[in-house]
Amino acid sequence: MTIDVQQYLVRQEPYYQPQGREVQLYEAAYRNRLPVMVKGPTGCGKSRFIEYMAWKLDRPLITVACNEDMTASDLVGRYLLEADGTRWIDGPLTTAARIGAICYLDEVVEARQDTTVVIHPLTDHRRTLPLDKKGELIVAHPDFQLVISYNPGYQSLMKDLKQSTKQRFAAFDFDYPDADLETAILAREAGIAAELAGRLVKVGLAARNLKGHGLDEGISTRLLVYAAKLINDGVDAADACRMALVRPITDDADIRDTLDNAIDAIFG
Amino acid sequence: MTIDVQQYLVRQEPYYQPQGREVQLYEAAYRNRLPVMVKGPTGCGKSRFIEYMAWKLDRPLITVACNEDMTASDLVGRYLLEADGTRWIDGPLTTAARIGAICYLDEVVEARQDTTVVIHPLTDHRRTLPLDKKGELIVAHPDFQLVISYNPGYQSLMKDLKQSTKQRFAAFDFDYPDADLETAILAREAGIAAELAGRLVKVGLAARNLKGHGLDEGISTRLLVYAAKLINDGVDAADACRMALVRPITDDADIRDTLDNAIDAIFG
Amino acid sequence: MTIDVQQYLVRQEPYYQPQGREVQLYEAAYRNRLPVMVKGPTGCGKSRFIEYMAWKLDRPLITVACNEDMTASDLVGRYLLEADGTRWIDGPLTTAARIGAICYLDEVVEARQDTTVVIHPLTDHRRTLPLDKKGELIVAHPDFQLVISYNPGYQSLMKDLKQSTKQRFAAFDFDYPDADLETAILAREAGIAAELAGRLVKVGLAARNLKGHGLDEGISTRLLVYAAKLINDGVDAADACRMALVRPITDDADIRDTLDNAIDAIFG
Amino acid sequence: MTIDVQQYLVRQEPYYQPQGREVQLYEAAYRNRLPVMVKGPTGCGKSRFIEYMAWKLDRPLITVACNEDMTASDLVGRYLLEADGTRWIDGPLTTAARIGAICYLDEVVEARQDTTVVIHPLTDHRRTLPLDKKGELIVAHPDFQLVISYNPGYQSLMKDLKQSTKQRFAAFDFDYPDADLETAILAREAGIAAELAGRLVKVGLAARNLKGHGLDEGISTRLLVYAAKLINDGVDAADACRMALVRPITDDADIRDTLDNAIDAIFG
Amino acid sequence: MTIDVQQYLVRQEPYYQPQGREVQLYEAAYRNRLPVMVKGPTGCGKSRFIEYMAWKLDRPLITVACNEDMTASDLVGRYLLEADGTRWIDGPLTTAARIGAICYLDEVVEARQDTTVVIHPLTDHRRTLPLDKKGELIVAHPDFQLVISYNPGYQSLMKDLKQSTKQRFAAFDFDYPDADLETAILAREAGIAAELAGRLVKVGLAARNLKGHGLDEGISTRLLVYAAKLINDGVDAADACRMALVRPITDDADIRDTLDNAIDAIFG
Amino acid sequence: MTIDVQQYLVRQEPYYQPQGREVQLYEAAYRNRLPVMVKGPTGCGKSRFIEYMAWKLDRPLITVACNEDMTASDLVGRYLLEADGTRWIDGPLTTAARIGAICYLDEVVEARQDTTVVIHPLTDHRRTLPLDKKGELIVAHPDFQLVISYNPGYQSLMKDLKQSTKQRFAAFDFDYPDADLETAILAREAGIAAELAGRLVKVGLAARNLKGHGLDEGISTRLLVYAAKLINDGVDAADACRMALVRPITDDADIRDTLDNAIDAIFG
Repeated sequence: MTIDVQQYLVRQEPYYQPQGREVQLYEAAYRNRLPVMVKGPTGCGKSRFIEYMAWKLDRPLITVACNEDMTASDLVGRYLLEADGTRWIDGPLTTAARIGAICYLDEVVEARQDTTVVIHPLTDHRRTLPLDKKGELIVAHPDFQLVISYNPGYQSLMKDLKQSTKQRFAAFDFDYPDADLETAILAREAGIAAELAGRLVKVGLAARNLKGHGLDEGISTRLLVYAAKLINDGVDAADACRMALVRPITDDADIRDTLDNAIDAIFG
Repeated sequence: MTIDVQQYLVRQEPYYQPQGREVQLYEAAYRNRLPVMVKGPTGCGKSRFIEYMAWKLDRPLITVACNEDMTASDLVGRYLLEADGTRWIDGPLTTAARIGAICYLDEVVEARQDTTVVIHPLTDHRRTLPLDKKGELIVAHPDFQLVISYNPGYQSLMKDLKQSTKQRFAAFDFDYPDADLETAILAREAGIAAELAGRLVKVGLAARNLKGHGLDEGISTRLLVYAAKLINDGVDAADACRMALVRPITDDADIRDTLDNAIDAIFG
Repeated sequence: MTIDVQQYLVRQEPYYQPQGREVQLYEAAYRNRLPVMVKGPTGCGKSRFIEYMAWKLDRPLITVACNEDMTASDLVGRYLLEADGTRWIDGPLTTAARIGAICYLDEVVEARQDTTVVIHPLTDHRRTLPLDKKGELIVAHPDFQLVISYNPGYQSLMKDLKQSTKQRFAAFDFDYPDADLETAILAREAGIAAELAGRLVKVGLAARNLKGHGLDEGISTRLLVYAAKLINDGVDAADACRMALVRPITDDADIRDTLDNAIDAIFG
Repeated sequence: MTIDVQQYLVRQEPYYQPQGREVQLYEAAYRNRLPVMVKGPTGCGKSRFIEYMAWKLDRPLITVACNEDMTASDLVGRYLLEADGTRWIDGPLTTAARIGAICYLDEVVEARQDTTVVIHPLTDHRRTLPLDKKGELIVAHPDFQLVISYNPGYQSLMKDLKQSTKQRFAAFDFDYPDADLETAILAREAGIAAELAGRLVKVGLAARNLKGHGLDEGISTRLLVYAAKLINDGVDAADACRMALVRPITDDADIRDTLDNAIDAIFG
Repeated sequence: MTIDVQQYLVRQEPYYQPQGREVQLYEAAYRNRLPVMVKGPTGCGKSRFIEYMAWKLDRPLITVACNEDMTASDLVGRYLLEADGTRWIDGPLTTAARIGAICYLDEVVEARQDTTVVIHPLTDHRRTLPLDKKGELIVAHPDFQLVISYNPGYQSLMKDLKQSTKQRFAAFDFDYPDADLETAILAREAGIAAELAGRLVKVGLAARNLKGHGLDEGISTRLLVYAAKLINDGVDAADACRMALVRPITDDADIRDTLDNAIDAIFG
Repeated sequence: MTIDVQQYLVRQEPYYQPQGREVQLYEAAYRNRLPVMVKGPTGCGKSRFIEYMAWKLDRPLITVACNEDMTASDLVGRYLLEADGTRWIDGPLTTAARIGAICYLDEVVEARQDTTVVIHPLTDHRRTLPLDKKGELIVAHPDFQLVISYNPGYQSLMKDLKQSTKQRFAAFDFDYPDADLETAILAREAGIAAELAGRLVKVGLAARNLKGHGLDEGISTRLLVYAAKLINDGVDAADACRMALVRPITDDADIRDTLDNAIDAIFG
């Protein structure tokens, strides 16, 4: 299997509005090949930021959506049976280490805590990846960088990164964009007027204030974009907000009432 | 394996009675390719609604009945051993992404919470599906849409969708149809008189009022149709109701008495 | 693998004594192809009733003894490696759906709760079975019917059918036959005199009264037949009862004494 | 694989001393092909009784030592990959059903409770074994009989046979032989004098009286035979008793003292 | 696979100092082919004793380090896929039964309690091993003997041998050698003077007195040999004791202080 | 697979600053082939010390990053299917034993407690490794040594080495270097001035004092190097410290404030 590096390049500049100095700081981290951890709530733009940086740095990007069933072999590779014997297939982490890609392990806490141990030799001075089953020791390409994402709100005693993993990364905090920036994002992404976008942002803020008071998480920028698109497509604003902002995130009758009332007040 | 797209088309218009504006709202969601979540109790018509929309939009529909043993590979695909080596077999989600089908993950909370992570890149701006084991990155067909169903009454601490999954969907609430509509449905589906259908609907209402007071769920429209068919086939109404409406849903002697008395009162 | 339909036909009329209108009601359920659930304690004749109905309706019967290790693949089918590649082998549920058999899932609560989800599309208006791993959607044969058995006494929080499964079935309650009928059954099955059979039935009743007072279940008709056969073979009645009725069901010394005393009183 | 029936025949009469009418009762059970359950503490002779009955009835005997990792496939059979495709290999239960052997499932509670469900169709009027994976329904050979062993002292809430399994068997209770019989057994098995054998039996009784008072189980006849053989081989009686009777069964210092004192008193 | 019996012979006499009559008693147990259980704390010489007896009896010795992941197949054998079909590979227990070796299952409580059931038929009058998956019944070679080791200090409710397993073995208790013997062992194994060896033994005794008072186990003879070798190699005695005796067994600061003070007092 | 020994040699002298006599003590341990355990917190230099010693002793070094999914086969080896049958592949432990490497099991407590049992015969007088599945007994190369690392701070009741494992190793304690040494390390590794390095060390000390008071672990030397590199690359000192030292290790707002204030005070 020859690796098709081209497919991992981000061809078009992703739309990304910086919230602070994160672009410059990431560039410094990459120049020093520091492993990077991006933290923040659901749908605040972590994945898009990494996509944007891969585009800006012109590096291939290999994304792995982590899950509990993911084994070390899913990251590193395995033998496959072929007509003429077994053949080794590199996993995405191995591929990234060979071609010098940015390897982005999305929602890494979902993976079994101990599976993450395989990334350790890639994230210290060794920058190596031992393929134990193949008897090969890979030295990472000089351009390789490891990035992980992580939602602190989900942490529990059962699911958290080990300190010996955390202490291998420089970290970036993300949060929802501030009101002005989020308004601009909605207007641009859904093609709606700034005034309407501003109202949607107010709904988002109302929900985010309920976080910890009945809501596990606030409404993400992504859902606000959904509502904006539906309104732009002719759907009634209240219908669009209920369908895109309220119904997906809660089944609690009281919270639904509170949010529905806020929507009616803002769009009434 | 060439995909037989035809087999996934819904050939005949499914019988569906709208309960509100859900058809128009779904059309708007589909035009914007928003992922959709349909919520509601057992047997209230969620699956049939999606079938109806697939027919109306003339899109192939690929349904996956989710279960706890379902792995990411069951959705995405796997290698199969053949005489001349291994061959990759797309899973239903991959097939749907390739051919532009509506992919309907029925009772998605049954799947392991973390397995659902594989749908994430298909449900944001990326609309991609990485086949890690194959080293291929699929860009979804422009017509592809993901739909999941979900029964809020089942949620527990152990089994609930993660916020990072929920915040990727526009949501539709479903409930049992109101009395007039349900009467019309029974009359049409089982070919019985409206008066008789109305009595059955009354039994259904009696049971739904017991929900939370000894019954986990009320009697679904589906079971009412069963009873109607049995009566239409010559079975005594009380026998049909006991067999189709009461015995399946509870073994509690008190609840059975209450329901049996209601049946006798309604049909006495 | 061509399916040998003949092997699934019930050749001889099974001995079955109706306890009520269950034969007529089952026939109505079958005519309307309603999925059926049979409920009742161990050894009261559930399996034999289904066997009898299959014989009466002249349909092939495919029985699956469910167990906790049973996977969806055990029901639906799997790929097998052959000399010239892999070959798909239908599971018993798939076979039944193809040939129009009655598929009887015995003790269905033993199966993993979520494995049972695979039967859902076969038990609503769709009457289909998606073979996800094969990329095939089976439409059930018009004569196909699904039947499940279920012992309510076993239900626990851990092992119960989900409401979304229950609400797909018409249900039949079974219990031990009344004294006259059970006496007739013993006399016929073991070839003993009615008077002796009546005494055995009295032992059975004594044990069933202890259910919930030290016994998990009463003595089944099956065990009474065992005792009758041993007595008919020349074994002392008290020995036969101890060996066939008491020793198998309890190790509690008090309960054993109570039952042994009842036996001595009845046969003394 | 042609089955070598000869290897399953018990060639020599096993040494067995009846404790009561169990031989005649077992013969009646076998004539009526009733499934049999043998109950009793460790090392009291359950397995040897079944071996003796197989010899007396001249039936092949297939013994399966059950364990928690045993799957239904281990009992029933599985496909094996061969050079020219897969080949089905019968499991021991299937072999026994085909050749008409007595199939003895030793310590059946060790198997997963639900795995035992596969024996159900073999233990009621059907006397069949469905090989679901092979699409074959085996009708048991007329001489086939199923026997299970079971130690009631081990039962816990987690590990007990289900009532629906228990109610398929006639049951035999076993216990350690009485003093005279056990003395005779020791004398014969180890070739020692009756007087010496009698002293060992006294040690056994002392230990059995401690059951429930610090000992989980008493000293089995088997261990008494061990001690007898060592003494017969020239080992000092106290050494032999400590090594064969006390050290294996307990690490509790008090219980060891009590038993050591009893040994010194009996042999002093 | 022809078995290379030679590799299992113990070529050189292992250094072993008897603590009592264990050599003679083991010889008697072996003459009578009694299964043997050796009990005692970590590093007191259990494994070496068995190695010594195998050398003395001139029998091949097959040792299996038991662990929780060990399945019955790891002991008994399994089918391996070959170019021309599958081939059966005997496990170490099967090999030992065939060639008449002493099979030593080291730390048998680590294995799953129920996996140990497979050794039962080898440890009673049958002396057989059924290879269920191969349909073969092995009769053990007349010279075969089974030995298990066992550390009573580790026993818990979760991990203990079942009585039905224990009651198949004659048992030997082991403990650390007494001071004179241990001094002699250290002097011989590490080539140090008796006076120095005596001081190390005193450190060992100090630690063993702390067992149950902050230490799970005392210092083993093995670790004393380590310290002796380091001192003999020129390492400062206090350094050697800290590194070989204290740091490995505890991280508790108080216990470390107590032991370090004892070392300074003894070597000061 | 011929083993490429060269790839396991450490070509360049790793930068290592001794903290005490550990180099000489390790050399003595190696001369006596004592197994070695290195203990200490995350990122204090354990792995680099072993790398340095392998370079100094000119021995190949095989490192295994242990994880919970690691099976004994991952260490020892397994059969792989080839075109012409199966082929045995040595695992890293087996390779190390054959070629006389130092085998370093990093974070060994992550491996299943009982999997570690396989290293036992390699760590006592036997120095053997039985390949049970291959029927081969490997005698370790005279130069082979086993080293394990271990972070005492992680120990819990669930995850700790067994005493029978601990009592096979000589142990080395590691901790963060003292202030002068750490300052020198930072200056050299990141090429920054000693004065700046000293300030970073002060931040590290501030965090280490919080260990147990809200922080699970202090800031490792590795993270201090990260911060130093970023500052050397032109990043503002406070930004660099927040990103490399604070954000990765804690999400607690109070602890973040405390650390951020310390940074401002030190660099203000």
